[in-house]
This record gives sequence, C-alpha cells and structure tokens, in this order.
Amino acid sequence: MERDQKPLSQDWRERLFVIIFEADTKMGKAFDVALLWLIVLSLLVVILESVPGLEAKYDRMLFAAEWVFTGIFTVEYVLRVVCVRNKWRYMSSPLGLIDLMAFLPSYFSLFSFGMQYFLVIRVLRLLRVFRIMKLGRYVGEAQVLIRALKASRFKITVFLSTVLTLVVVIGTLMYMIEGPENGFSSIPVGMYWAVVTLTTVGFGDITPTTTAGRALAALVMILGYGIIAVPTGIVTVELAQQSRKREEAACASCGCRDHDRDAAFCKLCGEKLGTG
Amino acid sequence: MERDQKPLSQDWRERLFVIIFEADTKMGKAFDVALLWLIVLSLLVVILESVPGLEAKYDRMLFAAEWVFTGIFTVEYVLRVVCVRNKWRYMSSPLGLIDLMAFLPSYFSLFSFGMQYFLVIRVLRLLRVFRIMKLGRYVGEAQVLIRALKASRFKITVFLSTVLTLVVVIGTLMYMIEGPENGFSSIPVGMYWAVVTLTTVGFGDITPTTTAGRALAALVMILGYGIIAVPTGIVTVELAQQSRKREEAACASCGCRDHDRDAAFCKLCGEKLGTG
Amino acid sequence: MERDQKPLSQDWRERLFVIIFEADTKMGKAFDVALLWLIVLSLLVVILESVPGLEAKYDRMLFAAEWVFTGIFTVEYVLRVVCVRNKWRYMSSPLGLIDLMAFLPSYFSLFSFGMQYFLVIRVLRLLRVFRIMKLGRYVGEAQVLIRALKASRFKITVFLSTVLTLVVVIGTLMYMIEGPENGFSSIPVGMYWAVVTLTTVGFGDITPTTTAGRALAALVMILGYGIIAVPTGIVTVELAQQSRKREEAACASCGCRDHDRDAAFCKLCGEKLGTG
Amino acid sequence: MERDQKPLSQDWRERLFVIIFEADTKMGKAFDVALLWLIVLSLLVVILESVPGLEAKYDRMLFAAEWVFTGIFTVEYVLRVVCVRNKWRYMSSPLGLIDLMAFLPSYFSLFSFGMQYFLVIRVLRLLRVFRIMKLGRYVGEAQVLIRALKASRFKITVFLSTVLTLVVVIGTLMYMIEGPENGFSSIPVGMYWAVVTLTTVGFGDITPTTTAGRALAALVMILGYGIIAVPTGIVTVELAQQSRKREEAACASCGCRDHDRDAAFCKLCGEKLGTG
Repeated sequence: MERDQKPLSQDWRERLFVIIFEADTKMGKAFDVALLWLIVLSLLVVILESVPGLEAKYDRMLFAAEWVFTGIFTVEYVLRVVCVRNKWRYMSSPLGLIDLMAFLPSYFSLFSFGMQYFLVIRVLRLLRVFRIMKLGRYVGEAQVLIRALKASRFKITVFLSTVLTLVVVIGTLMYMIEGPENGFSSIPVGMYWAVVTLTTVGFGDITPTTTAGRALAALVMILGYGIIAVPTGIVTVELAQQSRKREEAACASCGCRDHDRDAAFCKLCGEKLGTG
Repeated sequence: MERDQKPLSQDWRERLFVIIFEADTKMGKAFDVALLWLIVLSLLVVILESVPGLEAKYDRMLFAAEWVFTGIFTVEYVLRVVCVRNKWRYMSSPLGLIDLMAFLPSYFSLFSFGMQYFLVIRVLRLLRVFRIMKLGRYVGEAQVLIRALKASRFKITVFLSTVLTLVVVIGTLMYMIEGPENGFSSIPVGMYWAVVTLTTVGFGDITPTTTAGRALAALVMILGYGIIAVPTGIVTVELAQQSRKREEAACASCGCRDHDRDAAFCKLCGEKLGTG
Repeated sequence: MERDQKPLSQDWRERLFVIIFEADTKMGKAFDVALLWLIVLSLLVVILESVPGLEAKYDRMLFAAEWVFTGIFTVEYVLRVVCVRNKWRYMSSPLGLIDLMAFLPSYFSLFSFGMQYFLVIRVLRLLRVFRIMKLGRYVGEAQVLIRALKASRFKITVFLSTVLTLVVVIGTLMYMIEGPENGFSSIPVGMYWAVVTLTTVGFGDITPTTTAGRALAALVMILGYGIIAVPTGIVTVELAQQSRKREEAACASCGCRDHDRDAAFCKLCGEKLGTG
Repeated sequence: MERDQKPLSQDWRERLFVIIFEADTKMGKAFDVALLWLIVLSLLVVILESVPGLEAKYDRMLFAAEWVFTGIFTVEYVLRVVCVRNKWRYMSSPLGLIDLMAFLPSYFSLFSFGMQYFLVIRVLRLLRVFRIMKLGRYVGEAQVLIRALKASRFKITVFLSTVLTLVVVIGTLMYMIEGPENGFSSIPVGMYWAVVTLTTVGFGDITPTTTAGRALAALVMILGYGIIAVPTGIVTVELAQQSRKREEAACASCGCRDHDRDAAFCKLCGEKLGTG
C-alpha cells in the first residue's frame, strides 16, 4: 500500500510531529508537561542569576544550568523545524520566533554582557500551558475577555486620547507651578507625575510642595477618581453583554449567532431557534 | 423507657454538646457570646504584647492574661473533644485545628520565642460570630459572594496568568533599564516593583529615575489602569447574574424570563408563574 | 375670629419660622442663601487660621471675623429655638446639635486652645444647600445611592469581616517576618501597613525590605487587587437594581411598590398596574 | 451664468474653505494630516525645550523650530479667518480661540519668560484627529460616554458634596491629632492629605506617625475603599443603560422590551418588531 511505501524517515517525522506539536496522545502530553517544567526551571535560573548574593555563591552551578537549558531548547527547536511541514511558516510565526528567542540570547551573551536577560522571553512559552489543561474551558473564557476588550476598543481609544491630552496639559501646568526646584525638572517629568497621579499609583518620588501645586494636585486626584470609573464601566458592560449571548446557537435560516440566552426566536429573521 | 436507661454521663455529654456546639438554646447562645468576647480580649492581649512601650509597662499583667486565656481555651478544647461523637473527625476538621491552634502556640512559646504570635490564628475563630447573628441572612449573602467568585474562577485564572507573565517581563525590562544603581538590584526586585505598580499600590520605595525607565513605568501604569478594570468587571457581572432573577422560571403565557425572585405573576402579561 | 385673637408675638414667631426653617418663600430662600455664604466664609476663616504664615499676618483680622461669625450663628440659634414649636425636639435633633456646635467651640476656645478647630463641624451645615437647589432631584438621587448601600449592607458586613480578619493575620505575619528593625515595630503597625496595602493606597512610609516580606507583600497586593473588585461589584449591582425600579407605581390591589420599569402587571398579585 | 459672475477671489476663498475646514476631499484630508503632524512635532519641541540637558545642546535648533511652527500656525490662522464666512463667530468660538492660543504665547514669550509653555494648549488641537479617522464611529462612542456622564451628573454632584464634606472634616481631625510637628502643618495640608488618601493615590509625602493618627488613617482608607466603588457603580449603570437595548420598542405580541438594537423580531415570540 502507499502508506507503507513512505520512507522510514518521513514516518519518523510524522510521529515526532504528533509528539512535539500536539497534546492529544499520551506521549505528546508527557512531552508538553516536561517542556513546561524545563521552561519554569530555566526561568528560575535566569532570574536567580540576577540576584547579587546568590550569583557569587552558586555562580558556576547557575552558569552550567543555563547552558544545559540552552542546549535542550536548541535541540528542541531543531527538531521542531525538522518535523514541521511548512518550515518557513513556523519559523516566521510568533510562536516560532518565541521558540527561537528562548535560546538565541544565550549565544549572544558570550559576546555582549546583559543579553542573557532577554531569555525571560521564555515566560511567553508558558502560555502553552493552556494547551495541556482542559483547553476548551480556558480558551473560551479568554475569548470572552478578548471579545469584550475588542468590542470596547473604540470607547477605549476615545478614553485614552482624553487621558493623554490631560497628561500633557497637567504635566505642563505642574512644571510651570512647581518648577525644577521642587523636583518637576522638565515637562516630561511633569507628565510622568501626571500619569502616576491620574492612575492613583502615587509613588511619591515627586510631589507638589507649593500651595498652588497641591491644590491642582487635589483637583487632578479627584478627576482621576472619576476617570478610573470609566474603563471599569466600559469593560463591565461589555463583559455583561458577552456573557449574555449563547454562541453555540446559530439561526438555521439566516446564520446569525448573536442571540441572548433566553432567546427562542432569531432576532433578525424571526425563525425559531433550535434548543441550544 | 429506653431514654431513662441511658447512663447519666452520656446525658451530661449530650447537654454539653448542645451548649458548646449549638446556638439555638439560651445557654448555647450565652456560651457563644462569652466565647466571642474571650477571643476578642485574647487577641487584644497578643497584639498589645507586641507594642514595645506597653509591653515594658504592663509586662506581667499581659503575661498573666495570656496564660489565663490559654487555660480557658485548653479546657474548652478538652470539653469539645469529650462531648463530640466522632472525636477524630472534629479534631482533624479545619474548625478543630483552628480551635487547637488557639492555645497550642502558647505552650510552644515557652521553648522558642516568637511562637506566641501564631496565636493570632484565633482571629479565624471570630468567624463563628455569624452563627450567633441572624445566621441565614449572612450565610446567604456570603454564599452569593462565594458562588460569584467560584463561577468566575476560569476567567480569573486566565487573568492571573496574563498578569504573572506581564510581571516577569516588566520586572526584567526594568532591571535591564534601571539597573542595581537605581534600586532595581535584581530581577525579583523588579518583579516586586511591577506588582506594586500594576496593582496601583505604588509604595515609592523603588522608583525609576532614568528617562527610559519612567517612560516604561508610565506605560505600565496606563496598562494597570486598564487591567484593574477586568477583575472588577468579572466579579460585577457574576454578582449580577447570581443575585438577579430566577432564570429558570419562564412565563408559560409570554415566555418572559426576567422576573424578580419574589415574583408570583408575570410582570408583562399578568399570568401566574409556576413555582420555580 | 379666633385667628385674629392670637397675640402679635406668636404671629411674629410664625412668620420667623417660615423664613428661617423653610425655603419656599422669597424671604426664606434669601435667608438660606445668605446663611450658606456665611457658613462658607466662616469655614474659610477657621481653615486660614491654621495656616502658620497667614495667621501671623492677618491675626487680628481673622480673630475679629471669627467672633463676628460666632455672634451671628449664636443669634441665629437663639432665633431658631424661639420660633420653633417643640423646642426640645429641635435642640436634641442632629440638625439642632450641629447648629449648636457651629458656635459653641468658639466660646470654649477662650479657655482651652485648639477647641476652635471643632468649628469645622460647620461644614455639615452646608448640606442644607440641597434644600435651596431643586430639592427633589438631588434628594431622589441621594436616596437611590443610600438605598443601594442599605440593600447591600449584609454583603458589605460579610466583606468587611473578611477584610478585618485578613488585616489581623497579614499584619502579624509581616511583623514576624520583617520585625521592628525594618519599621514593623509592633502588630498594630503591621495591621496599619496591611490596610494601607490592601486598599492600594500604598503610602510607602513602611515597606518590606526582606525577600520573604516582599514576596508576601506581592501576594497581599494581588489579593487586594481582587478584593477591591468586590465592593465595586456589590454597589454596581445594587445601583442597577435600584435604578430599574419605578418607585411611584404602587399596585392598587396589594400596595407592592417594588416593580421593574417595564412591568405592566403586579408581580405579587397579578393586578394590572396603572400607567406610571 | 451667475456662478461665473462671482469674482475670482471669492471662489478662491471657497475652495480654501473646503481644504482647510473640511476633510471630505482629498486635498482637505491631506491638509488635516499634515496639520496633525505639525502639531505633534511642535508639541515635541515645546516639551523638549523644558528638558535642561537637551536645551543646552540643541538650544538654537529648538529655538528656530519653535519660530518656524509659530510662523506656520500664524499663517494658517490668518487663512482660516480670511476664508470663513462669519469671521467673528469663528474667532470667538472655542476652536478659534484654541487656534489663536497655538501661536500667540510665542510672541508674548519675547517679553516675558515662561509664556512659551502655554503653547501646550496645542494639544487640544490634536482632538481634530477624530475628524480624519472614521469619524462617525468615534464620535458615537464619545457621545455614549458623555451621555452616560451627563445622565449621572446629579448622582455625581451628591457624591462629590459628600466627599468634599469628608475631606474638610478628616483634614481638620488629622491636623488636630498629628499637628505641625508631624508634617500636618495646617488644615489645608490636612485636606490635601485627605484627598491623597481617599482617592487611594497615597503619595506618602505626609503620613501619620502617632497611633491615633494611624488608626484614623486606617478608617479613612477603608472608607475610601467603599467610596471608590460608588462612582464606578454610577458610571457602569449609566453606560449599561445607554448602550443596552432600545427600551422604547415593546413587542406588540408579548410585551417583552429586552431587545438588542439590531433586533427586527421579538426574541421570545418571534413577532415582527415595530420600527422603534
């Protein structure tokens, strides 16, 4: 038969593909779980390398571990490229680039110090975790969140434009009122202060000290108080609308899917909906 | 009769059980109220013991009070174990363990200083207060809150994963931009800063000082602004769904489902509603 | 006629009552507006008296102004007591006590310095402003807010109990981890820090410096992130429910007033509702 | 024909009007896009001029650029005045005043240093950007936001009055408790602290240090916790009402009113909806 005719190597690639790229088989799932643990451990190594005290003590150990992980991820990347059909599409896809960035900075760090910290990009690989867990549930919930954010993108653009305009005006006013002698050393610093205050973060590294500056600051804070309510309101309303719809029920007559949970008839063509 | 046949001791245990474990009888309620006051007072003693000035002055008094409370709670625990049917189940239940931890650290503190502070675990016993107050009402409201949180646990997991990924990436970027000379002494410190900023807490113990760092910080804050809207939206929508209408009861006449919990008739067509 | 028989003095009191206590007549409204400006000015005087630089300069002027306002408010209080029917009920009502506290601290300040600052209680008198403005509208909106808060008082009690329990536990843990050498000088200070952090205020006067302390702080902040969503959710849901009801439409049959805006039939007895 | 009779100059003005004031034609759109880039660049120049290091280096370049932009905006303003019909109405309209303020401070800055910073008012001109982008969509969303804020203006007034009253009372109490020796140097400073704390900004430039002050601060923060929920609730409910259903359209058959904006048939009984 034709199937048996295939060279062994191709068959081997196909089996590898199922293991590396999919999570449905036992082997595929085991591979993904092992990979996740490797990513978590390698992230820990990168993070610990930056701690001054620890680095001195376990310098050699962390160095070795880093290169072991780099080796494993390099091999994994090569295997992925080998067994995938459309090599170029994988290599230029976001996932492929993240896989590449998971080990490339290690090699660059040989020539230029500091490059190794780009390895934290590995954290993005952790998002694969959703593939192993009961996928559908999480992806569904993530999509509700994403759809809610997408549906409110126009409102959010209007909102952000207003906030940015406010930041420029408030930042300049505070620079004019307080001046460099009170820490507001330039308009960009004033704008940084405006963002810190409007978002109610309030670091306190730069604070008004004149009476006029404090009066303006009080106004800005009360404004920020009201402003913080707007994105919350937008997201809440969109989430409420998203969670009311029942996605699965498409109208048999016109194909419209945007129905409320308690809908019995299609709102566009009046056709009776199936019992979803 | 058989009831009279029972030995006196068992009868005594049963009556004790009703007093200690239940709050329906007069004695039972009096016991619970007295216990609550004891817990509040004993908590005050533990907290006051930690205040430097006070401890020196009232050292002996606080010490004595602590041991009186420890004695009372020990006796109470023994009585509880004695009068309960399934002794092991009570002792290994969360409530039983909390009751045990309410006096055990006192004895340990004889050998190792600092153990006495574990006694604040007593605060968890205060949650019994709901048993005395009009129980149903509060438990019902607590259950609405808990059910709302439970129903949104998938959305919250997705949300927390995104936040954690952001924290790792932002923390590393800030460490690379600002560096140890500006207080970002390691990646974990950068991640701590990222959490402080994204949650809009903004202690200000570590703050960016370079222009690039401040620009990134401004971006992070505006991001946090939008992110804080998401959990609020999730909880609000779930609360609304939990506390709203009894969705199951559709009017037999017009199909309207949007009825209040105490509704007996359809608000749109006046038809009597079925007992949902 | 009997009405003419009344002595002149009583008639004078009645007319005074209409001017001072009511705002429907032209004179009554003028009196209320004048009173509001007096309150605002007298508040400004009290506030300005506390400013170090100003006080030295305008000492005598502020002192004189303060006594003029005290005199006016004393006369006003006497007039109110004279013309009101049930003198004792007015004097012991909250409004009467606030009117009394608007000038009494001035006299006490002659004997004990610092008493004059209690005069800011005058600010509460400003709430009378709602009587002058288009009353109904504002009182109605205030009642929606108050009813929403009242309806959620059980949920809020449950929520606050949880927060207080968290504050005690977190405060003690931070005291044990960080200790007095890092600013957490006692458990109450730790609890103060816990409140500052959970509410996302984040003063930064006390901050963790050990790694364990910062890790716990990060957990607390993410917890506070979720917790801040709960009261917002509660209030939003209640506000939504309050604003859906149409208060004015009472059922003619059973008297129930709790109907949705789109209700055509009473939900309790099925009676047709009047067109509200 | 009459049209040809018109003098050339008027025709030229009309064509200029279409280019400068409208964005429908190709030329008009190109003009608006060019203008936007000029505004952004000129804003950058004003902001960069305030940075100490940069100003010294590129002093002459920034100075020249500023005058080039001033020249362009002056010419643009003259052209606008020339080609508009009702010159006075344009010049006294907010848009006209903003256009004037986009270059006037440059001339004033020749006589008085510091005037040039008023040029940031140019940022307001950026709001024209919405005219170029798919206008309808953004203006529609902005109107939903504005209508939601307008509809809740009474509730917000009641809310702000309460907050202001709280700020005066809390500010005075903190001044009395902590006093000038702990940074609360006057009642206005205490009020500034109250705003910083109630809005959960929490700069930390002024913080309570006495036990009584910290206890009050904890109370204020928990209060602020609840208070922050109110504006969010108000805005969310109004946004939900604005963006929700078209309430006026009740189904003629079953009376259900809960329909989406794009619904043509009742979702409960399938009846055709009237054109609302």
